[in-house]
Amino acid sequence: MSDILPSYVQDAWWTPVDDPDATVVRDASTGEPVARVSTAGIDLEGALAHARTVGQRSLGALTFHQRALLLKQFALALSEHKRELYELSKHSGSTVRDSLSDVDGGIGVLFTYSSKGRRELPNSQVYVDGPVEPLSKDGSFSGRHVFTRLPGVAVQINAFNFPMWGSLEKFAPAFLAGVPTIVKPATPTAYVAQAWVRILVDSGLLPEGSLQLVSGAIPGLFDHLRLGDLVGFTGSASTAARLRAQAGASEQGRGVRFTSETDSINASVLGPDATEGTPEFDAYVRQLLVELTTKAGQKCTAIRRAIVPAASVDAVADALRARIAERVVVGDPHAEGVTMGPLVSLGQRDEVLRSVGTLVDAGARVLVGSTEPPDVTRADGTTGPAPDGAFVAPILLGFGADAPDAVHEVEAFGPVASILPYETLAEAIELVGRGGGSLVTSIVTHDPVVASTLLTGIGAYNGRVLVLDRDDARSSTGHGSPVPHLVHGGPGRAGGGEELGGIRAVLHHMQRTAVQGSPTMLTALTGVWHEGAKTRHDRHPFRKSLAELALGDQVASASREVTLADIETFASFTGDTFYAHTDEEAAAANPFFHGRVAHGYLLVSWAAGLFVDPDPGPVLANYGLESLRFVTPVSPGDSIRVTLTAKQITPRETDEYGEVRWDAVILNQRDEIVATYDVLTLVAKEDAAAARAEAPELAEAVR
Amino acid sequence: MSDILPSYVQDAWWTPVDDPDATVVRDASTGEPVARVSTAGIDLEGALAHARTVGQRSLGALTFHQRALLLKQFALALSEHKRELYELSKHSGSTVRDSLSDVDGGIGVLFTYSSKGRRELPNSQVYVDGPVEPLSKDGSFSGRHVFTRLPGVAVQINAFNFPMWGSLEKFAPAFLAGVPTIVKPATPTAYVAQAWVRILVDSGLLPEGSLQLVSGAIPGLFDHLRLGDLVGFTGSASTAARLRAQAGASEQGRGVRFTSETDSINASVLGPDATEGTPEFDAYVRQLLVELTTKAGQKCTAIRRAIVPAASVDAVADALRARIAERVVVGDPHAEGVTMGPLVSLGQRDEVLRSVGTLVDAGARVLVGSTEPPDVTRADGTTGPAPDGAFVAPILLGFGADAPDAVHEVEAFGPVASILPYETLAEAIELVGRGGGSLVTSIVTHDPVVASTLLTGIGAYNGRVLVLDRDDARSSTGHGSPVPHLVHGGPGRAGGGEELGGIRAVLHHMQRTAVQGSPTMLTALTGVWHEGAKTRHDRHPFRKSLAELALGDQVASASREVTLADIETFASFTGDTFYAHTDEEAAAANPFFHGRVAHGYLLVSWAAGLFVDPDPGPVLANYGLESLRFVTPVSPGDSIRVTLTAKQITPRETDEYGEVRWDAVILNQRDEIVATYDVLTLVAKEDAAAARAEAPELAEAVR
Repeated sequence: MSDILPSYVQDAWWTPVDDPDATVVRDASTGEPVARVSTAGIDLEGALAHARTVGQRSLGALTFHQRALLLKQFALALSEHKRELYELSKHSGSTVRDSLSDVDGGIGVLFTYSSKGRRELPNSQVYVDGPVEPLSKDGSFSGRHVFTRLPGVAVQINAFNFPMWGSLEKFAPAFLAGVPTIVKPATPTAYVAQAWVRILVDSGLLPEGSLQLVSGAIPGLFDHLRLGDLVGFTGSASTAARLRAQAGASEQGRGVRFTSETDSINASVLGPDATEGTPEFDAYVRQLLVELTTKAGQKCTAIRRAIVPAASVDAVADALRARIAERVVVGDPHAEGVTMGPLVSLGQRDEVLRSVGTLVDAGARVLVGSTEPPDVTRADGTTGPAPDGAFVAPILLGFGADAPDAVHEVEAFGPVASILPYETLAEAIELVGRGGGSLVTSIVTHDPVVASTLLTGIGAYNGRVLVLDRDDARSSTGHGSPVPHLVHGGPGRAGGGEELGGIRAVLHHMQRTAVQGSPTMLTALTGVWHEGAKTRHDRHPFRKSLAELALGDQVASASREVTLADIETFASFTGDTFYAHTDEEAAAANPFFHGRVAHGYLLVSWAAGLFVDPDPGPVLANYGLESLRFVTPVSPGDSIRVTLTAKQITPRETDEYGEVRWDAVILNQRDEIVATYDVLTLVAKEDAAAARAEAPELAEAVR
Repeated sequence: MSDILPSYVQDAWWTPVDDPDATVVRDASTGEPVARVSTAGIDLEGALAHARTVGQRSLGALTFHQRALLLKQFALALSEHKRELYELSKHSGSTVRDSLSDVDGGIGVLFTYSSKGRRELPNSQVYVDGPVEPLSKDGSFSGRHVFTRLPGVAVQINAFNFPMWGSLEKFAPAFLAGVPTIVKPATPTAYVAQAWVRILVDSGLLPEGSLQLVSGAIPGLFDHLRLGDLVGFTGSASTAARLRAQAGASEQGRGVRFTSETDSINASVLGPDATEGTPEFDAYVRQLLVELTTKAGQKCTAIRRAIVPAASVDAVADALRARIAERVVVGDPHAEGVTMGPLVSLGQRDEVLRSVGTLVDAGARVLVGSTEPPDVTRADGTTGPAPDGAFVAPILLGFGADAPDAVHEVEAFGPVASILPYETLAEAIELVGRGGGSLVTSIVTHDPVVASTLLTGIGAYNGRVLVLDRDDARSSTGHGSPVPHLVHGGPGRAGGGEELGGIRAVLHHMQRTAVQGSPTMLTALTGVWHEGAKTRHDRHPFRKSLAELALGDQVASASREVTLADIETFASFTGDTFYAHTDEEAAAANPFFHGRVAHGYLLVSWAAGLFVDPDPGPVLANYGLESLRFVTPVSPGDSIRVTLTAKQITPRETDEYGEVRWDAVILNQRDEIVATYDVLTLVAKEDAAAARAEAPELAEAVR
């Protein structure tokens, strides 16, 4: 008998002494046992408590950037074991190409979150959301939104089809937010999840309590969830509804965040312009085949409904049939040349065939493929029946104009799609909507008006919409591939959740709180200097290293008069002879000016002249500027001065320098605000020479 | 018998023929009947259908800015009837001061959303969220998030305490999003809700189907909700849970968005530094009194738990008692000098007294006030008992260090608070958290470290945190006052929703969808030009009015060489003699440069010289610049050129001009990107002279 898969709880591997009732997991192609799964006797309350105490403490000691760097190291550690992971995944029916989305895709999520975490989050623990909201006339009271991390644990319940990607896409944002994870993999592929967790444990990089793995049932776990915990679930809509109710059932559990991604009846619409012979038609058929065959169609994002102009239905079916004959080799992923593996288990195969039966009973014709067990390529290269393998050949079903509800509701979670005809765009929109909410719909058209009309009609029913045409057919990441930069999830039937989506998914693990207070308090609470807060004027802030600089360090410049000659000099030097600067009469006719005014660029250039401390020092470069607004025009004879205040200080973990954002305000001789903006600089941590040795090209540094 | 309040459905007033079972609503101070409420025989399915067809169509014909302008007109129409609304509200027990939060507060929400809608949303119907996410190396495929409005109806179920503010804070964001509203007011104050709806109906400004009012029960309404609809509920946690389950119960109903704001056991923490005699101590007591007495404590945001250093408990109770004696006059709001009215009804009074009884049974001592019916000032100015009035005097309960769960769970929804002692900040944090999630907690301290420690500990349990000290005590909007700029809502017991919060609340009525496609497609779908999308070069875009300009209109400049003399000239003209521009050796020692480089400000100034078309024309002013990044340094001998492309065009509804955002890219002679930024300009719609007649000061125009 094969071994019981160990769980990883409270920072140690754990296995039941023995469990005769353990679930046996079998190879999808051969039916041979691969592993057994059981949690008989596991201490789930202990696991929760460990996450909430040890896990929260160890993650809470790290900043966003420190956690982001760990994600990169996790990704590198996993990358070294890709081949093992591919091999292991073959038992579940995954070809190496399938593993690209699961194994490489999962590692890619870690890399993306590592990069985004360092570029888009501060190097601290509070995330500031949106602008300052002034709430008093005198500036003494304002509001701002901050996100702080949830104090609980993220329980992540995954589907069988993506044991790595599906786990890592939930783990990465939780980890980055600073919330410990308990992963519960799906039983049929728990051995793959166990493998990646083991690699991370062996790497020695995991902060204590930040990751636990429970391979098997989690009886009673939900009874112990409480406000501050999260559940992320991927699987069937009915299980999601049950777990959601269970998680929030108790008084304590009120407020447990529950996100679900459930399999949805996704659509792909062929535009009326994309007739046979167009590049879009070809792209449509190619994509349909990819979605049918990748992971043998076991993807929650796969195309289930091909919505096609009535006149093109036969052409699409014919082209798909030809392409399948030409390209698809069904078989054991251990064999060379196999392009499509079995479903994950015989049980799953039976369920898919049952769903096909339901659709046929509802009126579907089988246009491509059949429900008969296909002959397949076996591991040894021979071809023939595989009675213990969960094989299904690709199937395309056809419906008429009066397609029944079943096609919008029944999901055959395998290599199965239905084709539905439409006459008008309004009909196509209605068909998409009847799916009751989807993860993704693709629109295949080269006509922006068609794309725009469809998006307006179907946007509210989809988490993602892919527009495919000749311009992006080669570079598209594909209908069925969520990317970590974009929201993954969808409304209604798709579960209503938003996973991924860059930093949005990190914030899902945090609480948004509106904070109100004085500028000095808001500065202390956000780590960002607020106008009106305390300032310090001990010496020029350009002379301070990152270590010495504090929020509120300020330089207030002397005043400088702008003459007409200055404006003329600037116009002739820059070539910017816009009439508002050069033609008194025309300028006076401009609605906003009363005569010639100084160039905005002159003002910010002079302001730099006024605030800069020129000698070499810790300030290395001005790499940008944000939110510049010219508020009051400057006329000849006016004077300007500038205050520059350290607003945000972001040391880099891996470099000898960091970013400093400065608040700049230009005032005139009447103390009116002329312009406001943020100046972005790179500043050495301690020693500019050390920074030099480390620094990459500027283009790299500022990205 | 008083009349039955009419409902407003399908753009017409409707009243039951008669209903002997109609609920009688009584004056809170005298028990006299004010109105009757019934919906016997109303067609709720018809109301839903009307909203989804007529309401969606009429709102869908408007842009965000057009809807925003209507909100302002609604606010103006209501402002003209303030006095009536104050008078009417007195029947519910509201003093004129109470009405400032309800009537003026509600009107203020409309003004704020009108202003924010025009400043923060585009003048179109799709909202773009976040930056472009490049998904291919060649730039042919990218992703972006857009929000499109939900296709259904917003059903808004309000609480009795704020019949105007509570309705308008839900209505304004829904309307701005383009989603029609059905308002269901609470029965005890339905006559106030009816009044404001009538004012808007009479104004003739309401788009068809955009607002309906159902005064009375809504039996079965929830059975007809479906994906694309929303429910916004304010009231008790138990009703919220029941309605939430009901809304999402059916297959169709899966995905109905349900937001609830439920009464929470809010806390106010007195910092250890804020001892008697400090301005913070006084501010704490003043605020506690305001929260006890405004609306007679019937506010979901009121302070229920005063968390106070053990040593200061007696001082707080004494100061509060003194202040109540000095300032609080309980009575009929129709009488002069009354500062606190009755509760809304005798039923509500009984429930409050019952809750106080529960707390006393759990160990509370009554420190201030009593549960006996107080003598009150009657409408005629006399003082004495008011047996048919729902009066309760302010009550402060005291608990010891071992306060029971009841104080964190039982809400006495009236002028009642409990005082709880703490020794350490960790204890204070734990006490706040035991409330299970609150709308708001205030922190009263002048010590930023105390504020920061508390926020870290309690952030996850609160939707809003107010920090009060000597600096903002006068200007603070107050513990109990949500403001439309900031999120209103809170986790856990508070309902888990986020209402208000500026544009966040508008987006709650829309679906976020990730769109993927080529730059040209993304341009068509978002209304924002994307790099790589089609461009047009027919004539200089500065010569085109807003009406003529199209996304992608571009000017590509000639090239200009930067010499060392230019850099020196610029340094001496601007005074910006930073060593990187003036000292070859020091510049070469800088980690990012290989010798002297041109000033970034020189580059953008020259770029303007290269792209500007100088003669008077539709382009009126450059009012700002965004997202400037210097990517590649420019050395003497390098040449630069610039492309400027129309990126976003935002006509103003009420002005003869609008904003144009231009994409600017500076390149060097090797076609490397030197700098990227957005240039912000004001451009005349058609005729610059017309724009002139209209234009305000620049400072106004750019805000």
